Amino acid sequence: MNYKTAVIRKEHFNAAHRLHNSHWSIEKNQEVFGKCNNPNYHGHNYELEVKVIGFINKDTGYVIDTKILSDLIKTEILDRFDHKNLNLDVLEFKRLNPTAEHIAVVIYNILRAHLSEELELKIKLYETSRNFVEYPIY
Amino acid sequence: MNYKTAVIRKEHFNAAHRLHNSHWSIEKNQEVFGKCNNPNYHGHNYELEVKVIGFINKDTGYVIDTKILSDLIKTEILDRFDHKNLNLDVLEFKRLNPTAEHIAVVIYNILRAHLSEELELKIKLYETSRNFVEYPIY
Amino acid sequence: MNYKTAVIRKEHFNAAHRLHNSHWSIEKNQEVFGKCNNPNYHGHNYELEVKVIGFINKDTGYVIDTKILSDLIKTEILDRFDHKNLNLDVLEFKRLNPTAEHIAVVIYNILRAHLSEELELKIKLYETSRNFVEYPIY
Amino acid sequence: MNYKTAVIRKEHFNAAHRLHNSHWSIEKNQEVFGKCNNPNYHGHNYELEVKVIGFINKDTGYVIDTKILSDLIKTEILDRFDHKNLNLDVLEFKRLNPTAEHIAVVIYNILRAHLSEELELKIKLYETSRNFVEYPIY
Amino acid sequence: MNYKTAVIRKEHFNAAHRLHNSHWSIEKNQEVFGKCNNPNYHGHNYELEVKVIGFINKDTGYVIDTKILSDLIKTEILDRFDHKNLNLDVLEFKRLNPTAEHIAVVIYNILRAHLSEELELKIKLYETSRNFVEYPIY
Amino acid sequence: MNYKTAVIRKEHFNAAHRLHNSHWSIEKNQEVFGKCNNPNYHGHNYELEVKVIGFINKDTGYVIDTKILSDLIKTEILDRFDHKNLNLDVLEFKRLNPTAEHIAVVIYNILRAHLSEELELKIKLYETSRNFVEYPIY
Repeated sequence: MNYKTAVIRKEHFNAAHRLHNSHWSIEKNQEVFGKCNNPNYHGHNYELEVKVIGFINKDTGYVIDTKILSDLIKTEILDRFDHKNLNLDVLEFKRLNPTAEHIAVVIYNILRAHLSEELELKIKLYETSRNFVEYPIY
Repeated sequence: MNYKTAVIRKEHFNAAHRLHNSHWSIEKNQEVFGKCNNPNYHGHNYELEVKVIGFINKDTGYVIDTKILSDLIKTEILDRFDHKNLNLDVLEFKRLNPTAEHIAVVIYNILRAHLSEELELKIKLYETSRNFVEYPIY
Repeated sequence: MNYKTAVIRKEHFNAAHRLHNSHWSIEKNQEVFGKCNNPNYHGHNYELEVKVIGFINKDTGYVIDTKILSDLIKTEILDRFDHKNLNLDVLEFKRLNPTAEHIAVVIYNILRAHLSEELELKIKLYETSRNFVEYPIY
Repeated sequence: MNYKTAVIRKEHFNAAHRLHNSHWSIEKNQEVFGKCNNPNYHGHNYELEVKVIGFINKDTGYVIDTKILSDLIKTEILDRFDHKNLNLDVLEFKRLNPTAEHIAVVIYNILRAHLSEELELKIKLYETSRNFVEYPIY
Repeated sequence: MNYKTAVIRKEHFNAAHRLHNSHWSIEKNQEVFGKCNNPNYHGHNYELEVKVIGFINKDTGYVIDTKILSDLIKTEILDRFDHKNLNLDVLEFKRLNPTAEHIAVVIYNILRAHLSEELELKIKLYETSRNFVEYPIY
Repeated sequence: MNYKTAVIRKEHFNAAHRLHNSHWSIEKNQEVFGKCNNPNYHGHNYELEVKVIGFINKDTGYVIDTKILSDLIKTEILDRFDHKNLNLDVLEFKRLNPTAEHIAVVIYNILRAHLSEELELKIKLYETSRNFVEYPIY
């Protein structure tokens, strides 16, 4: 069979972060970001779903080996984000506000560079079980 | 960054309802809707996912502030649907059969009127953990 | 082996109910039960965990066959509670307020009568994913 | 109302399987499929989501009666896949490697033949809570 | 009825923390706490289950009104722990290492002081979906 | 602080198995175990919760380091059970019927031998999300 199929691998990481716009006053930051602006940080258990879309390989029956996908996520994302302070420890957020939206875009850009062009990529990121984002849109 | 992204907020409400078509006989209603036609009603814990799609705002890093989205859902949906009898207490279902499909469409129409035009809206509604609907289709 | 072990079977039912004390005034009921007192009822997806404790049977390796336990729950509980209005359709709640606590005790008493004396029984009942009860206490 | 809506029914089945390409050597199979190649099989609790897309019927308020959909899944899929060895007991996998991707495509093809042409069909299959596939792509 | 029953209310909070023993060297802290010792903190979505055990009140059918219990948890725990840095913002952890075990004991002690003596109290705290603690033991 | 506390670590493994009593006839096995008796095996995603009870260590704030507990479970249980056929590949089930009850007792006995005597141990094993066992009883 030769059908276009999506494979999703779910991973998780724990991190501290703080929402903040350095071009704004303390008051404006407090007004817009509320308790997410706590200067001492707060944190989340992020659940990450990485969706890879492509044709099923006739020899393996795989779109992509989930072991290979899991290892890629571990090396490129978890080793850099897990048990970290996103604002202080992760280069990409030195100047970029680590909202769930921005984290999803950053993860997309990192992983995109490691996947072959025939494969489509989509990211779903849960900040809590009630707040989550998708990029690019499904 | 200026990327199209989806933000999803999950809320829930509890309600009683009954499936019934007033143009049909008792027997026909019983045949089609089975135990969902119980004249004394039954009920569900509805889980509601509201997806808003748009561009990330460069100043906030948000497509939409989930606090604002959550407040909107509370005011427009939960305050009117939660701990209610959908057939008796909610205007929209006086003549409309409160199937999961119809509830999703009604919620879409209510929320659509409160969101700016640049934002796309999608509703996912779980009636039980094994039965759920999406409108408009994803 | 001959070890005391617990077996848990999870089932679910959907029902409408209303919290109400008929010896109280309308105002008192409203004050104590709030929106749970809605005269038109509201409803829930109840998740029910039935725990049976006993010795493992040497021939089967079972404390109790979960198929038999599931059938018992179906016949004695689900057929009487599922897609029902607990206040109007279920005899036990004609005079007993159908709080989660009372529903758990009623289910315990019904199932207790159908299990052999060597088996211990415990009920866990989820009214929502955030409110649940256990009887007898674990 | 006459709106295009998706209805999803979730079911599950338990099965043993083994990933294997009979055209490859033992070493090559071991290298590509690792512990999934165990000649004695391993197994999973598969969670299956069947999504049916169509217009809401004005008389019923349904896209499709989930009871009818559930019965169809039971007859065509669960009765043939549940508590089975996919490689040995299920005709479709006599020569087709039972990866999650292939299982999803096989389920799609079986159910597609039983649904009217106006209805669109999509399959989501969880092999574990961290590995799942979608066909056709969402 | 007058039966001893347990009522559980589930709440959640997000917080940053760092595991650290100030009497130990940097090396010893790193060796014991590993990446949980990150000086810039990391964080979690803590899920908190508060179990209250007592007799069912004959008038209300409640052991305790979950609305009252939820408000108590909000005032005494969530307002002080949610979106905070446990090490820096919460008095009790100025000198106490904020492991899940210690957080559970601290929450127990705070809530215990606000519940009447006839009620028994038990805390279950999820640091992640795979790591959780109970105090006192169930 | 010096309080008795429980720490739970959740892990999972996938395996094939078959319920069978070799002292019984084919018919008797079929009658008692039904589709679980399939001679070609079926399988499950087993979710395993290992609960360790003890006093909190004053220096670490831990009852037991969950990293150490997780490594122990991996070495002693997952490496021997994951992606295996319990009946054919796991010594303990050569003559012992691999029901959930028996698997829990076997896991308890293996892990018990690796934990110091001051620590109490309890096993919870999910065969499916609706069938699970606890040993020793909670």
